[in-house]
Amino acid sequence: MNAGAAPLRLGVLGLGRAFTLMLPTFSRDPRVRLVAAFDPRASATEAFAREFAGRACRSPEEVCADPQVEWVYVATPHQLRVDHVRLAAAHGKHVLVEKPMALGLDDCSRMMDACARAGTRLLVGHSHSFNAPVLQARRMVEGGRFGAVRAIHAMNFTDFLYRPRRPEELDTARGGGVVFSQAAHQVDVVRLLGGGLVDSVFARTGRWDPARPTEGAYSALLSFRSGAFASLSYNGHGYYDSDAQMDGIGEMGRPKPPGAHQQTRRKLREATDEAEEARLKAERNFGGSAWVPDAGSPPTAFQHFGPVLVCCDAGDLRLTPFGVEVHDQEGVRMEALPVPAVPRSEVIDELWAVAREGRVPLHDGAWSRATVEVCLAILESGRGGGNIILRHQAELPPGAIPTPP
Amino acid sequence: MNAGAAPLRLGVLGLGRAFTLMLPTFSRDPRVRLVAAFDPRASATEAFAREFAGRACRSPEEVCADPQVEWVYVATPHQLRVDHVRLAAAHGKHVLVEKPMALGLDDCSRMMDACARAGTRLLVGHSHSFNAPVLQARRMVEGGRFGAVRAIHAMNFTDFLYRPRRPEELDTARGGGVVFSQAAHQVDVVRLLGGGLVDSVFARTGRWDPARPTEGAYSALLSFRSGAFASLSYNGHGYYDSDAQMDGIGEMGRPKPPGAHQQTRRKLREATDEAEEARLKAERNFGGSAWVPDAGSPPTAFQHFGPVLVCCDAGDLRLTPFGVEVHDQEGVRMEALPVPAVPRSEVIDELWAVAREGRVPLHDGAWSRATVEVCLAILESGRGGGNIILRHQAELPPGAIPTPP
Repeated sequence: MNAGAAPLRLGVLGLGRAFTLMLPTFSRDPRVRLVAAFDPRASATEAFAREFAGRACRSPEEVCADPQVEWVYVATPHQLRVDHVRLAAAHGKHVLVEKPMALGLDDCSRMMDACARAGTRLLVGHSHSFNAPVLQARRMVEGGRFGAVRAIHAMNFTDFLYRPRRPEELDTARGGGVVFSQAAHQVDVVRLLGGGLVDSVFARTGRWDPARPTEGAYSALLSFRSGAFASLSYNGHGYYDSDAQMDGIGEMGRPKPPGAHQQTRRKLREATDEAEEARLKAERNFGGSAWVPDAGSPPTAFQHFGPVLVCCDAGDLRLTPFGVEVHDQEGVRMEALPVPAVPRSEVIDELWAVAREGRVPLHDGAWSRATVEVCLAILESGRGGGNIILRHQAELPPGAIPTPP
Repeated sequence: MNAGAAPLRLGVLGLGRAFTLMLPTFSRDPRVRLVAAFDPRASATEAFAREFAGRACRSPEEVCADPQVEWVYVATPHQLRVDHVRLAAAHGKHVLVEKPMALGLDDCSRMMDACARAGTRLLVGHSHSFNAPVLQARRMVEGGRFGAVRAIHAMNFTDFLYRPRRPEELDTARGGGVVFSQAAHQVDVVRLLGGGLVDSVFARTGRWDPARPTEGAYSALLSFRSGAFASLSYNGHGYYDSDAQMDGIGEMGRPKPPGAHQQTRRKLREATDEAEEARLKAERNFGGSAWVPDAGSPPTAFQHFGPVLVCCDAGDLRLTPFGVEVHDQEGVRMEALPVPAVPRSEVIDELWAVAREGRVPLHDGAWSRATVEVCLAILESGRGGGNIILRHQAELPPGAIPTPP
């Protein structure tokens, strides 16, 4: 942190799952201060006021209008984000909005326009493309010693579909399913590693469980303008756990208790109906009765989004929870990175660089709209369609990959 | 072996790589006897005569006309197989032909017609779809306890492209590249697991090294008639080694020496030109100066073709070199299989069942032509094409999966 630069003052819209997962970052990174929040659950705003000596607001407008708030963190459900970003911009605020930024390209453009008109910044995240090993692999590619990126392989097998959900999270039309929630990570990671410009997308999606009537799995083949291709697969059905390929480290950068993955379905059977399931989910979030505050111990590894391989002319780069494993003619070696004391501090790195140092953002509106475009193409192609041609792709801005801290 | 049933008397066309890899099977399985062989290398036929007290023939015709020969094993280079199969059939012989059976669908049909007219059997193999864990996984699927197959994921990262090659093996038009040689395995495995009927194929292929001007990599998305999809990726560039996901067991079912994989490119630099490289390859095969006879020790694991996952409604099945690992609501458990004393004895199991017990073949002409059709579609789609519709697919015949020995 620059001497004399004041912490970023954040107002929060939505204290649900996304906020709960960002909380260890916000509460421990000195570059951020939480000053106001709104959530429909009074228990959550009250807990917020207690924990952070922040303001418990009774409406999104109240957060956005608060003169103390510099940046609004929009972490409301997918389908509400467009209105909340526009509201924040209308109040002259900079915006950090959760991924996926919206459910349609028009909404993405509206958000971008609103911030452009207001002269405020728009960043999209957290997504796992912020993870340091992803940035490190891209930095290694840009360094030139591995030659061109030729192919990328990404897969992730999780228990996503059987974690407790609100009804809309199981309804694709309202932003549910693994394509909006999970491809948003995987596509962002893959686009970043490949430079950003995807020409077309062919995909197949799986809606296999009538009790969870949304996409629970997909495989996609992305064709980059460079000629590179990428194969992406995701399966959220809770059987095989691809963290077995990640040294047993879970998405959140911590060792996973054995068996936790396969227990997800069994636990869900305790929920008797939709309302009960939604309540189960809410209670696990910040301010809920089943919320477990972060232990406070520093993470042992980086967060990740499953096995990823980048195939280049002169070597393959394998992303791990500890850095980048290089496979080339010389053999196999690990380029380890120091695990930061604060999880997801990479998000604050970018926020800080943009807000306080005038740096070029990586995860801006145009970048993130391009990821939404790929996700929408996965859905469209997956409905039995062909190879979908894309028209709103954005290149990785030169200089967007930060030098290591 | 049935009491009283005589061993199968095999004549061999081609004592090159394919034969060399089948030799440990032929020489140790009592159900087979090698009685005659032809190869253009006199050193190889002479070694054959010495080792097996078999006949060293001076032409393919001589093998096919030999009344001692019951089955002709056609293991000549890809582009010669169609003529050799027809020759064998014309002499009234049954045929075991290496994969890929041919480089075009018309040639496949000609082979099938020739054997049908002659009233002889046509089997295609070895391919890795013979491997016991593949058959076991399909048997588990057919048993019904895991419900429908929904998706299949197969990948394999090898050093294929940088092993010593003859010039035609680097020329796609003459059957070179990883699609003809390696997709032939992977597609056969995936089709078997999915029941056989693939409706369409979308793919991207990589020709990245001008010094090896053929496909060295691909990713493909197969759509099955059942609604299931399969994601296949292959990379033969010799950097990342996917045997790391197979307990360090190599394709041949034996532990791999550390570093062997990445050394392939370095070793190839010793070859000064095409002729020298082809000579290097030939010398490693049966009868060559660098040929290392099989140690004779039984394999420690099954042969395999890289990581494969079968996703079903009620569980995921992971193929390993030791059997099938089941991932379901109960957790993770291994269904291990006894490793046979003779590698690839599964090929002789099928050969014997067809030849001596009148059983339905699995790897017959129609089955294997369907695999060639998928491979050709990978090449066609990979040339910038779209989703290729298939018209010659064959279903897994009911009862084709044998009960375990």
